Amino acid sequence: MRYRSLRLTTTAILFPMADYETFSLGDFPLQSGSTLWRAQLAYKTYGALNAAGDNVVLIPTFYAGQHTDCELMFTPGRAIDPARHFIVVVNLFGSGLSSSPSNAPPPIDRASFPRVTIYDNVVAQHRLLTERLGVRRIRLVAGFSMGGQQAFHWGALFPEIVDAIAPICGSAKTAPHNFVFLEGLKAALTADAAFDGGWYERPPVKGLIAFGRVYAGWVYSQDFYRQREYTKLGLGSIDDVLRVSEQRYRSRDANDLLAMLWTWQHADVSANDRFNGDLTAALQAIAPRAIVMPGDTDLYFRVRDNELEVRHMPNAELRPIPSIWGHAAGRGTNPVDNTFIDDALAALLR
Amino acid sequence: MRYRSLRLTTTAILFPMADYETFSLGDFPLQSGSTLWRAQLAYKTYGALNAAGDNVVLIPTFYAGQHTDCELMFTPGRAIDPARHFIVVVNLFGSGLSSSPSNAPPPIDRASFPRVTIYDNVVAQHRLLTERLGVRRIRLVAGFSMGGQQAFHWGALFPEIVDAIAPICGSAKTAPHNFVFLEGLKAALTADAAFDGGWYERPPVKGLIAFGRVYAGWVYSQDFYRQREYTKLGLGSIDDVLRVSEQRYRSRDANDLLAMLWTWQHADVSANDRFNGDLTAALQAIAPRAIVMPGDTDLYFRVRDNELEVRHMPNAELRPIPSIWGHAAGRGTNPVDNTFIDDALAALLR
Repeated sequence: MRYRSLRLTTTAILFPMADYETFSLGDFPLQSGSTLWRAQLAYKTYGALNAAGDNVVLIPTFYAGQHTDCELMFTPGRAIDPARHFIVVVNLFGSGLSSSPSNAPPPIDRASFPRVTIYDNVVAQHRLLTERLGVRRIRLVAGFSMGGQQAFHWGALFPEIVDAIAPICGSAKTAPHNFVFLEGLKAALTADAAFDGGWYERPPVKGLIAFGRVYAGWVYSQDFYRQREYTKLGLGSIDDVLRVSEQRYRSRDANDLLAMLWTWQHADVSANDRFNGDLTAALQAIAPRAIVMPGDTDLYFRVRDNELEVRHMPNAELRPIPSIWGHAAGRGTNPVDNTFIDDALAALLR
Repeated sequence: MRYRSLRLTTTAILFPMADYETFSLGDFPLQSGSTLWRAQLAYKTYGALNAAGDNVVLIPTFYAGQHTDCELMFTPGRAIDPARHFIVVVNLFGSGLSSSPSNAPPPIDRASFPRVTIYDNVVAQHRLLTERLGVRRIRLVAGFSMGGQQAFHWGALFPEIVDAIAPICGSAKTAPHNFVFLEGLKAALTADAAFDGGWYERPPVKGLIAFGRVYAGWVYSQDFYRQREYTKLGLGSIDDVLRVSEQRYRSRDANDLLAMLWTWQHADVSANDRFNGDLTAALQAIAPRAIVMPGDTDLYFRVRDNELEVRHMPNAELRPIPSIWGHAAGRGTNPVDNTFIDDALAALLR
């Protein structure tokens, strides 16, 4: 761990041309009352802000993803286009790039990293956009999974500057079963004694692998496996799928994964002093136009979750992605699903 | 472990009035080619065989369950009734009562326990019924989950003596996604270094707890959690649900859990020299009348699995349980689901 966090810091210092930039928030007050000392947001922009300032597309990252993973959302030919839009991709706290257990300074390093909410992320992003990037309006906030949860929060907290949101396989509030599924992931990771309460010197590899193997059952649907859709990802067998999933999480920092997991479990657009837990009021406050796109076969962000939410949103449409790719329908790896999603994104950008 | 397996053996020897009986199979040849030395089936009978010999109901146990758990299936007022039926409940190999890693003699003890298939279980059960219990016909084989998988096998392997089968939340062949979900459970359990490749002296408690916490996300549906159906089980919160699930698996032997898990993963009614992997042929061989009851919201034994299977069965009806209890719809703990299931069982017993 020390090595890894050192390496990240060194990269940022020695290579100012690293593929992302950082925005210093100073000592950032969190919803919990704790302080995120020397807080930083890592972000990357693509394209340029136009003269009217009306071409901003904000894309917050998803769980265990970084800005590079989000680039799938605006590959050539897609609705979001760096030639026309000023795209800002912001990494979640806990992502390993923005302030995270793996890179935060003592006393908030590693297992001592404080609890960060989606609200905290969005408030920090608002500062980045307004103070650093000169953004005054946001044309669209689009995000996948936890990125979608952030899009909901943007809509509820800053409706006056957001024109539209596109939550993809995400919800305004994490559903109870979604919470339980995440408890399972957490238990699998921390069952490894090498995790050592988060004070490991070497990664808890067995726990990370278990995390990846448990995840593989959740992220795709039952029919995805039955119909061997994984062959479309260049994977020949279930073993290959498990191997890739292992590797995906094996390469992450355990404390980072757990920090983001906590953020996810406690996502709730109404859990702040604006809405005081009144979910209906928070949803009603989402004035921006919204197309909410759950995946038809997503096992943890359910169509039903969004259905209940959209009812209270004044300007929203529910448009489930007809896909057997489960949660991964929204990830950007299935061209057919991308086309479906792009229809909605294009409508919101028109 | 040593203590525990000793205790089981001693119980069987010193207390012939234990609540179950055992049938010695001798050195039992397995499908794999390995031998299950001094193999034993633990079983319990309820009611009496009638003069015509036509009132036998066989109930094979489900994963991590024992015969006592199956008694839920014939509580007073239910369709299966010890006053009318001769009920035989047989414990799975790996259950901790029939031959299992936790009670088998060296050299097949603990992590050295050989791979046992559903086929092996059913062939052994056939010997128990015909050689020990004098059974010549079986009115009904009814089972939940892996018990349902055994029911399918009975129908395909011994159609000449089985009148009807009722697989509840089970499948003739374990679906690919079901296999993956089980891989996750296995990884969570074995991430605990205390598991020690199965050679633990003390239970790998953290691994067993992780197993229970991962399981909790799978066994009930998303809507079960949303609608707080767990309150009907006397549980007040999600924490309570997780605690009960932890306890359920914490109290099991890790090697036993893994032995049964392997059996489950490799369940396939056609994987034997009768059908040589021809699933369609095996399903077509299921001549007994069948009512196949998947749970509408089961996350791992899917309605779709059974739908594809029933198509090839000559005398079968698909009758999904309209329940939000997920896999647990078939377990016998929800009175509403029990009533639905009993309608089918009563029809098969008429």
